[in-house]
Amino acid sequence: MNTLTVDLGERSYPIFIGNGLLTRSDLYAPYITGRQVMIVTNTTVAPLYLEKVKSALQGFQVDEVILPDGESYKDLKTLNLIYDALLEKQHNRTTTLLALGGGVIGDMCGYAAASYQRGVNFIQVPTTLLSQVDSSVGGKTGVNHPLGKNMIGAFHQPKCVIADTDTLNTLPERELSAGIAEVIKYGLICDKPFYQWITENIQALMKREPKALAYAIERSCQNKAEVVAQDETESGIRAILNLGHTFGHAIEAHQGYGQWLHGEAVGTGMLQAADLCWRMEHISSDELTALRDLLIASGLPVVGPADMSTDDYISRMLVDKKVLDGRIRLVLLKRIGEAYMTSDVPKDLLTQTLTAGDKLGLA
Amino acid sequence: MNTLTVDLGERSYPIFIGNGLLTRSDLYAPYITGRQVMIVTNTTVAPLYLEKVKSALQGFQVDEVILPDGESYKDLKTLNLIYDALLEKQHNRTTTLLALGGGVIGDMCGYAAASYQRGVNFIQVPTTLLSQVDSSVGGKTGVNHPLGKNMIGAFHQPKCVIADTDTLNTLPERELSAGIAEVIKYGLICDKPFYQWITENIQALMKREPKALAYAIERSCQNKAEVVAQDETESGIRAILNLGHTFGHAIEAHQGYGQWLHGEAVGTGMLQAADLCWRMEHISSDELTALRDLLIASGLPVVGPADMSTDDYISRMLVDKKVLDGRIRLVLLKRIGEAYMTSDVPKDLLTQTLTAGDKLGLA
Repeated sequence: MNTLTVDLGERSYPIFIGNGLLTRSDLYAPYITGRQVMIVTNTTVAPLYLEKVKSALQGFQVDEVILPDGESYKDLKTLNLIYDALLEKQHNRTTTLLALGGGVIGDMCGYAAASYQRGVNFIQVPTTLLSQVDSSVGGKTGVNHPLGKNMIGAFHQPKCVIADTDTLNTLPERELSAGIAEVIKYGLICDKPFYQWITENIQALMKREPKALAYAIERSCQNKAEVVAQDETESGIRAILNLGHTFGHAIEAHQGYGQWLHGEAVGTGMLQAADLCWRMEHISSDELTALRDLLIASGLPVVGPADMSTDDYISRMLVDKKVLDGRIRLVLLKRIGEAYMTSDVPKDLLTQTLTAGDKLGLA
Repeated sequence: MNTLTVDLGERSYPIFIGNGLLTRSDLYAPYITGRQVMIVTNTTVAPLYLEKVKSALQGFQVDEVILPDGESYKDLKTLNLIYDALLEKQHNRTTTLLALGGGVIGDMCGYAAASYQRGVNFIQVPTTLLSQVDSSVGGKTGVNHPLGKNMIGAFHQPKCVIADTDTLNTLPERELSAGIAEVIKYGLICDKPFYQWITENIQALMKREPKALAYAIERSCQNKAEVVAQDETESGIRAILNLGHTFGHAIEAHQGYGQWLHGEAVGTGMLQAADLCWRMEHISSDELTALRDLLIASGLPVVGPADMSTDDYISRMLVDKKVLDGRIRLVLLKRIGEAYMTSDVPKDLLTQTLTAGDKLGLA
């Protein structure tokens, strides 16, 4: 097991990464302050891991709420099921919420913890690659609104993150790919050596070789923890973690949440961002096509939805949280391994990217 | 105009108290950081004051959302109307929400501000006595759940509070009384000289004499600001501000939110707490009956709902946020002017108080 720390002063917390962690009572106990625990999970994860986690929580009042599975349920209505369960079981201010599942469960459980009785403790137990490398770390929580993704939420840090790599053995292929999209992201935005490592080890990752996966998770979390420690509430540098997300959110919203996986949309979104960066002469044509090849090797889509027009993209991108005074702001690459945020986006080049279709990423 | 400060380090903010403040552009402008303002108000307050406030906000993109009036609408569904308006009008992260109304509007607008895009600015413009002396100050925001009051929420401080005493001229009698209940509370919990002043000036307050009202608001806010500055997130001392609230919340929940005004329920709740304190020999029979007389002079109810059994109270009190490990915790009086919190409540005496009926407060 490896332990990393997210350094946020009195809100600092550890990330435990390794195999066989789900059943380790000693990892949970120090982070449960009261006697009550509410496990928030979903219909897919519960049959696989709920009993394992409960076996590690003997001595506590453990209740559970099992939500329907999928991004399309990441809304206020489903969130309310968590409040219902907490109140029906009379959980008080000292309760600890435990998110057992992927990014959707983590975001909803975290937001329930941020808002129940004006804030209670929570623990992240991510069971997908995407949530282990990204969404479980950093304290972003929330739900979607029909008019925009993650529009309702809070910054609320977990007390600890327990990433058990064994859970990745049951992960569907598509979700493995979606997680790798976020792993690639860290390389692109701030860690060129890691990007090169991913390119060389993509086959091992796709074959789920434990050593390769553990390394990818650790290095991703390290990168994320460093960025978050510099800017907890995203007033500046943290925004670079959203490379590909403005494009990706537009795709997700247009298709209806849950059609494309978040990581899939981010994958295509990163290629769109890179395509624009190539047109802006920030990266070479070789680098652009190499990224496209890497995404294909990761099993990710490299073409946006066929029926999505430039206007479809633009109107969705205008409700992104990064929009300021009606101007689209994007995270772009200065070069491979260095990202920046700008509202100075050449419209003609952006249009070329958005209309590239199956030529996207081909210089 | 008088200015008080709530001292919370980098989250400190001013409270402006006086007449003719609604139209003063110079009070709003320094606290609006972006170009967008969303006024959140209700169907009762909008016809009276919305245009006045808008006239003071020229030069900004000002939008409004007008909610139905009443505590029964303080729920997730009505909250969502604020998110809808913000997204439809494309308000971004730099927007400022402005709460124009009483406690329900302040709590809902504040919570919308806490959660929209993970937190935006807001300004409190309270238009009832209760919200001017209590709910607009201190950063508690939230909505009710069918199983408990204020169960969903956040601590989110406003950038400033603008309390225009002119707005009290249009306040219904019942709401004036409800506000005075909270004024009396400050005397009881931490300011005996103020309690004596209220006893001597209750007629002037009920006649809405401007000088008396302004003094009562100022002194109340001063007391609240001092308590909040010591304990922003209610881990200790701040709980004394909830004198009468555990009883009161039980009454409100039992009757259905909106039947009793919050201040009315708090008034009767304070008398119940005082009755228990008399049985515990903390206050004298004279002090108990004097409080009852003061509540009557304030136009407040001094008997709980006739159909409410001891079990009705206890079961509601057990979901109060102060409950710990299944034990009811109450704010009680050591003496007039000094409150404390305890989970050591003699059950027999509590039962006597809860069954006192029209003998409540009569030693």
